[in-house]
Amino acid sequence: MTQHQLVLHTPDGRPMPAVWAYRLYAWLLTRMPREEGDWLHQTGEHPISQFLFYDKDTQQMVWTVNLLCTELETRLSPPLLETNTIDLHGCPISVERQTIRKVPGPEALIFQGREQCRKRVEIRFLTPTAFKQAGRYAIFPQERLLLQSLLGRWNYLCPDYPLTDEDAISALLEGIHIVDYALRTTRYRMKDTAIPGFCGKIQVEAKLPLPLLELWGALVCLAPYGGIGIKTTLGMGGTQISFQRENPASL
Amino acid sequence: MTQHQLVLHTPDGRPMPAVWAYRLYAWLLTRMPREEGDWLHQTGEHPISQFLFYDKDTQQMVWTVNLLCTELETRLSPPLLETNTIDLHGCPISVERQTIRKVPGPEALIFQGREQCRKRVEIRFLTPTAFKQAGRYAIFPQERLLLQSLLGRWNYLCPDYPLTDEDAISALLEGIHIVDYALRTTRYRMKDTAIPGFCGKIQVEAKLPLPLLELWGALVCLAPYGGIGIKTTLGMGGTQISFQRENPASL
Repeated sequence: MTQHQLVLHTPDGRPMPAVWAYRLYAWLLTRMPREEGDWLHQTGEHPISQFLFYDKDTQQMVWTVNLLCTELETRLSPPLLETNTIDLHGCPISVERQTIRKVPGPEALIFQGREQCRKRVEIRFLTPTAFKQAGRYAIFPQERLLLQSLLGRWNYLCPDYPLTDEDAISALLEGIHIVDYALRTTRYRMKDTAIPGFCGKIQVEAKLPLPLLELWGALVCLAPYGGIGIKTTLGMGGTQISFQRENPASL
Repeated sequence: MTQHQLVLHTPDGRPMPAVWAYRLYAWLLTRMPREEGDWLHQTGEHPISQFLFYDKDTQQMVWTVNLLCTELETRLSPPLLETNTIDLHGCPISVERQTIRKVPGPEALIFQGREQCRKRVEIRFLTPTAFKQAGRYAIFPQERLLLQSLLGRWNYLCPDYPLTDEDAISALLEGIHIVDYALRTTRYRMKDTAIPGFCGKIQVEAKLPLPLLELWGALVCLAPYGGIGIKTTLGMGGTQISFQRENPASL
């Protein structure tokens, strides 16, 4: 499983809107045989997450593509690596630079989680993020929705280490709290629909017994690869994490 | 019942932190006999709400004081109107200008609500705002908490028009939705405590049968006078409202 990050440039140097991730995804699907693209559409969960983010600090437009199963990696890594220009509806997007890293497997994530777990974590929602709850879009990131999303992604991507123990999940939910945030609503417009979501950042504090704290850390470490919330294949839910100073409670 | 708005100036022209509202409140209490100040402290609900807000657009520091019962109005309106300088711990704050308006009574609020009720409303939380829920501070403005706060304030300030019909309250809650927001957490620091809360704005859409829509409008119109959430006497929960374009659904 592989993460590609491509620094992209438009002909006029202007940033692309985040929603062009959808066009980039369509272009990516043309890099493999049609029947395989169809198979991808038919599965409920998607072994690919991708998003487009303009980093104001570096003034760079970065397209992140996470290929989350071996088949997709085999099919799409080579064409991605060979690409110098992406033709998007007649607009030639040049690939300035490309980095590639291995998506950590479950053991590595658990190790990372163990290293980091004593700290407060900041989760940045770089592209519009939303959850579905009782048939509606949820536009605030409640702890329950966040945890459900991370668990769902973990169980899909790490099927050999399933996290399904209801007691442990309840205890996790009891122990995590969003303690700070700066968020605003936004819309992700695709074709004729505008999906309501939010962008911004939250800080989550965990007060948990050690084994669960490590588990929480591992789940969070998966987020930059799997994304958070709905439609991460189409460009929503692009996520960065950073572990912060020690929790005050643990000092 | 009266709303005073005082434009204040510090000696060095710099804005005061919002939390100085607490000092201003203490100063205000010295304008009336001690035993009356004590009475104010002992009541659970407070017939006064006040907050300090620096308006970036006009570059003015405005202190809003809502005197929400006849007794307080009689006692405090005259000294407020006569004040040219407020001595805050040795710092002389000058009163540049003062406006005074009548707080609308229940009939006027119901009339205002009727005029405005078809529209989406934007609620701006100008000073740190928080709710209490199950013994914790709630740092997201859920619809239920918002409605409970508005209803509590209404029933306290308009006791002749009590809103206690559980079915109506349930229907109101069903019909109102926060559809947009831009919010961030903050702390309101008083003495040795730091109360977590949020600032920013939300947009609320109401899909309700007409009588309830009018009621919702009236409740919202009370918010700039009564404040929203906890500790509105001490400077938290200072609120502005503005009714927006027609709801898309009602076009």
